[in-house]
Amino acid sequence: MKFQLNFGHVPGIPVGATFKLYKEMNDVGVHRSTMGGISGSGKFGADSIVISGGYEDDQDMGNVIVYTGQGGRNDAGKHVRDQEFIRGNLALAINQKEGLPVRVIRGKDPKNSFAPDEGYRYDGLYRVESHWHEVGKSGFTVWRYRLEKLEATVELYDSSSSPAPLTGGNQAPERKSTTVQRIVRDTKRSKELKKHYDYQCQVCNLRITTASGSYAEAAHIRPLGAPHDGPDTPNNILCLCPNHHVMFDLGAFSIQDDLTLIGIDGVLFVKSGHQVAQEYLKYHRDHYLDRVKNS
Amino acid sequence: MKFQLNFGHVPGIPVGATFKLYKEMNDVGVHRSTMGGISGSGKFGADSIVISGGYEDDQDMGNVIVYTGQGGRNDAGKHVRDQEFIRGNLALAINQKEGLPVRVIRGKDPKNSFAPDEGYRYDGLYRVESHWHEVGKSGFTVWRYRLEKLEATVELYDSSSSPAPLTGGNQAPERKSTTVQRIVRDTKRSKELKKHYDYQCQVCNLRITTASGSYAEAAHIRPLGAPHDGPDTPNNILCLCPNHHVMFDLGAFSIQDDLTLIGIDGVLFVKSGHQVAQEYLKYHRDHYLDRVKNS
Repeated sequence: MKFQLNFGHVPGIPVGATFKLYKEMNDVGVHRSTMGGISGSGKFGADSIVISGGYEDDQDMGNVIVYTGQGGRNDAGKHVRDQEFIRGNLALAINQKEGLPVRVIRGKDPKNSFAPDEGYRYDGLYRVESHWHEVGKSGFTVWRYRLEKLEATVELYDSSSSPAPLTGGNQAPERKSTTVQRIVRDTKRSKELKKHYDYQCQVCNLRITTASGSYAEAAHIRPLGAPHDGPDTPNNILCLCPNHHVMFDLGAFSIQDDLTLIGIDGVLFVKSGHQVAQEYLKYHRDHYLDRVKNS
Repeated sequence: MKFQLNFGHVPGIPVGATFKLYKEMNDVGVHRSTMGGISGSGKFGADSIVISGGYEDDQDMGNVIVYTGQGGRNDAGKHVRDQEFIRGNLALAINQKEGLPVRVIRGKDPKNSFAPDEGYRYDGLYRVESHWHEVGKSGFTVWRYRLEKLEATVELYDSSSSPAPLTGGNQAPERKSTTVQRIVRDTKRSKELKKHYDYQCQVCNLRITTASGSYAEAAHIRPLGAPHDGPDTPNNILCLCPNHHVMFDLGAFSIQDDLTLIGIDGVLFVKSGHQVAQEYLKYHRDHYLDRVKNS
């Protein structure tokens, strides 16, 4: 690693700070990569990224960004090969797994209404909510990341109950700061499906029982929200234990059309009264399944 | 159930709405219990609570509330017996487990700076972050709940990316609304501890492996934040798989001083270089262990 990663806000650089040149961002440490859009390592995660319209597949919705990984382009900026799951692309996936915040810097981009009119602007901390792969507009594999702005998941753990910045490390050790590693969301439909399975995991049949009742999690096979926009319908939902939910979301296993599991042994249990749509299983296989392990 | 539970905001009742009498809140449906502080059922959860200074153990910090369960008091309002984990007390634990929001209404209380000067005020939706039992100021068992205001966990799933209200049910089915069931937080110290264990669960030895590396969660034995204020030190942290983390937090198991597990079979694995403090294990046993199952 050429430089020290530094997660969280950079002291003295407020959200909204602007920079004319890439080099200025290097100098103050808000973005330490001298050329790349992703500052980070495949071992420790990414501490900052620059969004500047270079990738035709990026989608900027302000509080939510669908960001494209690096690589796969020739000198003219054209996609000519698959992006690999290494370096910066792997780094952003580690952010997701570990709950590390990433600084987002937007660069000038006339096509993006959230971008500054000139130069670069530090736009605060985001969490990496998910990552997947897909065939981009050019026909080659790209890695993609859904980023969510962190103001939305304010830290409530300080005894003072005043919101503290979410930072991942490089802090004075006295300071109790936490990051959000994982958020499990639920819908009315997914609550119903969990009841249908009486909270039993469709992969391992485990039912976690507690004094306040049984516990399970619902996994949307094709995720809700942009850019996937999967439906909140029972044929797109599975009832899983937390372990298999994490593994499913991180692509450690997926499911064949005949319900055989890929990546782990077994067959998905589907109870009478529940149907799983093959098109959503295919979506998960095509975008989430760990390609390294299962190719 | 005498009345229909109705989770989330009540249409037409904005946050900040005030009421002179309890009955007015019943009539508009913002709080449907005619006398009790908790509106809910031990089967479906609680849709609203009233905080009015009746319980000497309550702590109101605004965005964070430590709320005391119901029962155990005589007609004069004096604690004379243990509170039971039934009805409203069980209901609030179900909210935690299922991610159901609860409406919080504050009643006049001269000792509480967050309370209205007179009558009652609807103060919005909170999530039940955790629940535990303790011996209250009067020497009897009370159930306690840490509530966090929901603005802090804004919904980011709508494709529009505009924040939607977090509501749990009773909505038109077309509306895609999600609730937060579980938030896993992490600190710098807990990241270090997970690396020390190479992401292996101290209960079942499982290591979840994914293309972006191994995954585990860190559990603070005595929780961070008010009112527990456990320290962020390795002797207060365990490295667990998500399943055992959920079970630990919900009191399905706890740990003896000699590291034998209570509630499930086995012994906690502690690796050389890590020490677990007995005082924090005792705190967890005293406050979280499922008393029904393990008494």
